[in-house]
Amino acid sequence: MKTMAEELFKEFREHSVSEFFRKNAAMLGYTGKIRSLTTIIHEGVTNAIDAAEETGVLPKIVVIIKRFDEEPEHFRVIIEDNASGIPEEFIPNVFGKMLAGTKLHRYMQSRGQQGIGVSGSVMFGQITSGKPATVITSTGNGDIIRADVMIDVDRNEGKITNVEKHKGKWRGTRVEVEVKDVTYMRSRYGPFNYLRMTAIANPHVHITFVEPDGTLTILESATDKVPERPKPMPLHPWGIMSDDLLILAKHTKSRNVVSFLSAELSRVSKRKAEEVCKLASVPPKKKPSELTWEEAERIVSAFKQVKLYAPPTSGLRPIGAADIESGMRQILNPEFVYAINRPPKVYRGGLPFIVEAGIAYGGSAGKTTDRKNENEEGEAGMELIRFANRAPLIFDQGGCAITTAMRNIDWRRYGVDPAAAQLTLFVNVASAYVPYTSAGKQSIADEPEVLDEIRTAIMEVARELRKFLYRKIKIKERQERAGVFEQHLPIIAKKAASLANVKEPDIKPLLKKVSGVDNAEEES
Amino acid sequence: MKTMAEELFKEFREHSVSEFFRKNAAMLGYTGKIRSLTTIIHEGVTNAIDAAEETGVLPKIVVIIKRFDEEPEHFRVIIEDNASGIPEEFIPNVFGKMLAGTKLHRYMQSRGQQGIGVSGSVMFGQITSGKPATVITSTGNGDIIRADVMIDVDRNEGKITNVEKHKGKWRGTRVEVEVKDVTYMRSRYGPFNYLRMTAIANPHVHITFVEPDGTLTILESATDKVPERPKPMPLHPWGIMSDDLLILAKHTKSRNVVSFLSAELSRVSKRKAEEVCKLASVPPKKKPSELTWEEAERIVSAFKQVKLYAPPTSGLRPIGAADIESGMRQILNPEFVYAINRPPKVYRGGLPFIVEAGIAYGGSAGKTTDRKNENEEGEAGMELIRFANRAPLIFDQGGCAITTAMRNIDWRRYGVDPAAAQLTLFVNVASAYVPYTSAGKQSIADEPEVLDEIRTAIMEVARELRKFLYRKIKIKERQERAGVFEQHLPIIAKKAASLANVKEPDIKPLLKKVSGVDNAEEES
Repeated sequence: MKTMAEELFKEFREHSVSEFFRKNAAMLGYTGKIRSLTTIIHEGVTNAIDAAEETGVLPKIVVIIKRFDEEPEHFRVIIEDNASGIPEEFIPNVFGKMLAGTKLHRYMQSRGQQGIGVSGSVMFGQITSGKPATVITSTGNGDIIRADVMIDVDRNEGKITNVEKHKGKWRGTRVEVEVKDVTYMRSRYGPFNYLRMTAIANPHVHITFVEPDGTLTILESATDKVPERPKPMPLHPWGIMSDDLLILAKHTKSRNVVSFLSAELSRVSKRKAEEVCKLASVPPKKKPSELTWEEAERIVSAFKQVKLYAPPTSGLRPIGAADIESGMRQILNPEFVYAINRPPKVYRGGLPFIVEAGIAYGGSAGKTTDRKNENEEGEAGMELIRFANRAPLIFDQGGCAITTAMRNIDWRRYGVDPAAAQLTLFVNVASAYVPYTSAGKQSIADEPEVLDEIRTAIMEVARELRKFLYRKIKIKERQERAGVFEQHLPIIAKKAASLANVKEPDIKPLLKKVSGVDNAEEES
Repeated sequence: MKTMAEELFKEFREHSVSEFFRKNAAMLGYTGKIRSLTTIIHEGVTNAIDAAEETGVLPKIVVIIKRFDEEPEHFRVIIEDNASGIPEEFIPNVFGKMLAGTKLHRYMQSRGQQGIGVSGSVMFGQITSGKPATVITSTGNGDIIRADVMIDVDRNEGKITNVEKHKGKWRGTRVEVEVKDVTYMRSRYGPFNYLRMTAIANPHVHITFVEPDGTLTILESATDKVPERPKPMPLHPWGIMSDDLLILAKHTKSRNVVSFLSAELSRVSKRKAEEVCKLASVPPKKKPSELTWEEAERIVSAFKQVKLYAPPTSGLRPIGAADIESGMRQILNPEFVYAINRPPKVYRGGLPFIVEAGIAYGGSAGKTTDRKNENEEGEAGMELIRFANRAPLIFDQGGCAITTAMRNIDWRRYGVDPAAAQLTLFVNVASAYVPYTSAGKQSIADEPEVLDEIRTAIMEVARELRKFLYRKIKIKERQERAGVFEQHLPIIAKKAASLANVKEPDIKPLLKKVSGVDNAEEES
């Protein structure tokens, strides 16, 4: 007779990762008609900018959204870049296989990092419209390849059909996705705002955008400096976990622990590695693959006892305070703006990151529009704009470490009433590995080190704001004081002069001295 | 010469789903020291309850958290159930392979549904402590099996070691996970509160809990009615997508479209299927596997033109209004409590769901504690407690459709000041497929139909609250009015009697009539 367990486990099966995300498309950001369309733009544009930067060229991105006649919820989305192009044999895996890519095994700062994004849009197009995506690409070798790509979700594999080859001088990639059941709107959560925010945080990117009604918008690049190509960054020993160390040890080419530690970790010299081995009682000549868990744990704690340089910043590419300020000035026209970028820090796993923050007061700062729209979240009064590696985060605001950090601050201490302030706060987290809360990459997890650093950055810009507001109040008070004297002093002078029967004195120098208006700036 | 593309694509690689979630453990809820421990409890307990219910027994769950001596952040977590047990050959895949399970290919209401949860805890234990999980299980056949399980993350495969067999009469499964870098606290976000909330929404479950300091808590079951075993539920045609239909068509055993539609979809008779084929101009005798995308689209829209019964509720297992009310009464001791369960609805993909809501006013309602704790989110004043298929959702509150629905309501219209009200709102979403926003399953996506239904449910209970508050005000006003008359009427009566020189009249009947206290209840 069968046991209950045998009966129940008859049904035990294994699924592909594509099938998982087909059922759970919301996890990739495909939820709601507006958000789903913005997610396709987001995945395409982040990939395009990453690819151009890896190729070492100034990114020129074209985004076209065409609406099908008579069908308000049926679109063709076209995203084109000027990057390296894709060799023919990689097309099925780049667009049709999830968890595959050139970046996901390296610690390198890039917008995409999971090898899911573009395959996700191909899948979402396919499950809503039934149509394959079309890819047109050339590596610049004179051949332009055009192919249709569908995903076999049962196998997590790309299937290519209708391949054509043309001759032509061009390099880049153009992806076309046909999608249904989505809506185009010019709201805060729509593609237009997404691209505008991308432009603010990426002054080197040139974006051409055509909306469904044919409106053409060109977001010019503000610089022609080709950005440095991103570099893979080895892990830094601060905060590295034993498990990370053993995984590196398994894959290293080094033959002994000392050379392994100095080759695979950043800021570790041979001498430091020897010192650590000694502290950890690990034989320096031991084969890395033979390290035990206990030895790895001892190495991890030994690293805490030796002096090391901070993680290198060369691999991280923050926006920079000046660019953040000019970006905020351009769109918000504020009375006051201030931005900083913090020194690099490390979180769990030895991963370096940098937090940048900017604050703008007055002008159109804080005026968040579209409060009534789909997926509406966020606080009244203050506006928060969030970025991770310069890519805008516009959804899932409530669950994000940046939001938590902002809410945890007692704004009244900075002279700000959070419910009424005309304030825009800008935060960018730059890292080779941003700890996203989900595959939709719209929200940063509450890693303690990251949360602390965001909080510190916000408080730093808030302090500058407090100084500005204080000065503003002082000036106002002095102006009021000056007003009182200006009003009464001439009358007193006149009366006194007439009583004393002398000529009325020039009271202007006195007025200036008493009211202090002249030197208010230096004093405060 | 190599093109830039060939250079870049040298690095192209494919990763396993375990490797993906190892790097992105935050997506599974492993973020923060308190939350990570609660996530292990959550995954173990939901699996244990599901397993017992599938076996058809009253769930009896044991949870033990032991702290290692002298190591404040090092624990052994033990979770035991009384379910069917696991046949030996399935142990590696149940605990060591992600995206594998008995449930993920069926549409059936259960707490776990992704085949990731328990493998995720085994992985988190492994990457923090370096130790395998220990599984002890028996299907009740007299053999008790004990085995250690580790995950090979490169291959997404479980590896079993130290297998032992003992003889014994017992049926169930016990999992032990050793974990480091986590913290035990009795806060809102800790295991204790998680289990208490589980008990509120699952009156049939018996939970024994031992805390690290040895404190024993028993959460008794409030009923001994064995719950019905959950049933797989076919998709209902309302809101089904063409892609779903074609996937069903690919796997069906039916030989023609008519029998396919009536066999694989719920509430579709042969006659309805014929009617739909006619409307959609699809040959009724066509092989299901030969259906084209266009035919599937026509079938989907034809279903919108025929009358169908609403999706069956038999597969859905809501808590029930009475149990919600008694649960809230038990913990909050409120002045007023009211709960409803809404009729079943369907969202994208033809998936039925039921929303239940409860509201409590006064007593200890609305008194959210631990505002200062890690991962703190939520609104001041009102307390919101969220459930999906009776499993508590305690993190990621900001990004959840339940929170969005609550915030979108103008509470003042219901006589409630959301900042100050002593109010607890309870919402449970029951479905064979809850649209979670991430694999951490702590937040429900803003699917329009689900969001609307939650909003409607909340408004329905809020209306009852308004009636109660209105009645309360009325009673108070009448009491005040009565007070005025009670104070003055006797004096007037006395004076008047003495002036008229008559005996003072009995004014009590008059007082009652004037103040209306007596019939306040019936009137309002």
